[in-house]
Amino acid sequence: MQNFIFEIPTKIVFGRGQIGRIGAEAARFGRRILLVYGRNSIKKNGVYDQVISSLQRAGLQIVEFPGVKANPVLACARKGIELAREQRVEVVLGVGGGSVIDTAKTIAAGFYAEHDIWDFFTYKKEVLRALPVLTVLTLSASASEMNQAAVMTREEGMHKFSIRSPHIRPRVSIMDPETLFSLPPVYTAYSAVDAVSHMLEAYFNNEEPESPFQDGLTESFFRVITESTEIILKEPQNYNARANMMWTTTWAFNGLIATGLGRVTLPVHMIEHSLSAIYDIAHGAGLAIVMPGWMSYTRRRNERKLAQLARNVFRINAGDEDAAIQGIVKLKNWFASIGCPTSLQEAGIPESDIDKIAVNAVVLAETWQLPDYTKEVIAEILRQCR
Amino acid sequence: MQNFIFEIPTKIVFGRGQIGRIGAEAARFGRRILLVYGRNSIKKNGVYDQVISSLQRAGLQIVEFPGVKANPVLACARKGIELAREQRVEVVLGVGGGSVIDTAKTIAAGFYAEHDIWDFFTYKKEVLRALPVLTVLTLSASASEMNQAAVMTREEGMHKFSIRSPHIRPRVSIMDPETLFSLPPVYTAYSAVDAVSHMLEAYFNNEEPESPFQDGLTESFFRVITESTEIILKEPQNYNARANMMWTTTWAFNGLIATGLGRVTLPVHMIEHSLSAIYDIAHGAGLAIVMPGWMSYTRRRNERKLAQLARNVFRINAGDEDAAIQGIVKLKNWFASIGCPTSLQEAGIPESDIDKIAVNAVVLAETWQLPDYTKEVIAEILRQCR
Repeated sequence: MQNFIFEIPTKIVFGRGQIGRIGAEAARFGRRILLVYGRNSIKKNGVYDQVISSLQRAGLQIVEFPGVKANPVLACARKGIELAREQRVEVVLGVGGGSVIDTAKTIAAGFYAEHDIWDFFTYKKEVLRALPVLTVLTLSASASEMNQAAVMTREEGMHKFSIRSPHIRPRVSIMDPETLFSLPPVYTAYSAVDAVSHMLEAYFNNEEPESPFQDGLTESFFRVITESTEIILKEPQNYNARANMMWTTTWAFNGLIATGLGRVTLPVHMIEHSLSAIYDIAHGAGLAIVMPGWMSYTRRRNERKLAQLARNVFRINAGDEDAAIQGIVKLKNWFASIGCPTSLQEAGIPESDIDKIAVNAVVLAETWQLPDYTKEVIAEILRQCR
Repeated sequence: MQNFIFEIPTKIVFGRGQIGRIGAEAARFGRRILLVYGRNSIKKNGVYDQVISSLQRAGLQIVEFPGVKANPVLACARKGIELAREQRVEVVLGVGGGSVIDTAKTIAAGFYAEHDIWDFFTYKKEVLRALPVLTVLTLSASASEMNQAAVMTREEGMHKFSIRSPHIRPRVSIMDPETLFSLPPVYTAYSAVDAVSHMLEAYFNNEEPESPFQDGLTESFFRVITESTEIILKEPQNYNARANMMWTTTWAFNGLIATGLGRVTLPVHMIEHSLSAIYDIAHGAGLAIVMPGWMSYTRRRNERKLAQLARNVFRINAGDEDAAIQGIVKLKNWFASIGCPTSLQEAGIPESDIDKIAVNAVVLAETWQLPDYTKEVIAEILRQCR
């Protein structure tokens, strides 16, 4: 166990009928609220009306900033910052999933920035302050509702990078599992893949020889995610399965699992970011393609941990080498069984693009200081994903 | 999953050589520090010197309040409150285990109270404000370093009761696993029993039919605790085992495991409190005596969960009834194997005292609103512990 600091002050208000509390929570931080959201889904499922009426009951002034798209882009956040400044907002409230919340966080950090906000994403500048961020979560996967990260794509060069700062960690997040009832099945599957990927990158990244606390969390959460996903795909309105999935995805990437592991890197996310940046595919779909290929590429190095995962999650009883191989197959088949693509081909990405993707990804590898991931290595991993 | 609010703002600074940060952390909350500690152990193991020199380096004024004993008593906390008021302290720093930290919390809450502080423990009064509490943890078991509870015994009537309030949750806790190196083996065992008991009372208390998130945490943490304890008893200076144990006991009772379970009651703690109040035995020893007896008494009601525990933690493969019975035996044997008493007799408590203990315990049962636990029921459970 390596030294660490753990501090997650986010207040979570979880459960049925809790969205109506957002007004009172937001009022603790300011009167003028920038309401960031996506397109139609929150209007269709009634979340928008609940939020507006709660904010109005609390006597707050609302400045709307709609239209955030999946794989959110920097140009959108820039417009949000402009609006936030013009309207002198005091609080940023994101109502949506990871894309919306990450945009809200970027606006909150950018509000005070006197430089190009992309400098936060390239780690040239540190976030020193930000407007308070609150969220109402309607798609659980990224754990952005309780973590200090935000991911954005800059269209120029198609780079999908991230910020990390305690200043952008949400102060309050409201999580009502019923908001997920109308989520299309494939997004439930993508959520599962994203959460699993967050955990496995820490699991295999382990610099420590023994990390039973962290491994146990990952293995346990992994089982909850697979079981809940299978229930949800059959019964989209199963409250308990939605609730378990929602709360588990939060803990999969809010920081707890990484405590004591030293530096945790995210090579699968790193490579995937190029796929969703260039092809605008869903992040979860991209992860389902890259994860098994990356596992195959790193199989010998991670054999012991792969075997441990295979035994403890997939109940595979075999020697290390066999268990590791079977574990990868099992995971890939599970991704396919819940409706995810598991190869570049299935996502319509031609093999001939591999070098182009690697050129894009290596820029992030350098920013994230992953020197082992050269252009050639990334291309080789992508060939395992054909 | 029932509705819940989760909010744990405590900052944890974890690892080797971190105690020297306490001065800088404390300085964020005030200049005059009440330093609460026990007797000699922190002077012997060097923790006292590290704390004092760090506080001095930060230019803080130190008011010492030593002498807190295990099973801390209200009279001691009252003296601490008097001293804190006289010296106009601004921060309460507890350096020790649960007894010291609970005393620090009681002083912090009592500082502003204009009524008898026992009223907090009988829930006649609510804690509305408290001095900021910080801790340096030297014995991990109670999770007091990250939770909102404090337990105290009032000598008059020998009642061991508790407060709960977000205001007394520590702002910062420093956890250096090396401080545990000199802990006598039996206290390591008691820590394990306390943590296991915290989790199992939630596990069996479950009002929800299915709680895979919470159950998975308990089963996983349980395995970490048993494995770490066994390593520590052989190698008291095994850093990684100490660290895993320390961090796991924190999460066993900081609030996460109870999220979504509705009302979580602690009947085993309730009955044990009478043992440690009347006989001044270690809390962990008392729990090791009461837990198996309580499990036997409630076996039929909890059979499914007992069987689940037996399968997932002790790897017992059997039908529900057999697995449940074997699980209780296995747990009791494990408590014995690590050096805990598992019967009243072993702790020198005569069977003829059972009615007296039940009379004491039922007062807490009433305060905690556990109407099923009448004097007769408690006596029957205690007879299972002979």
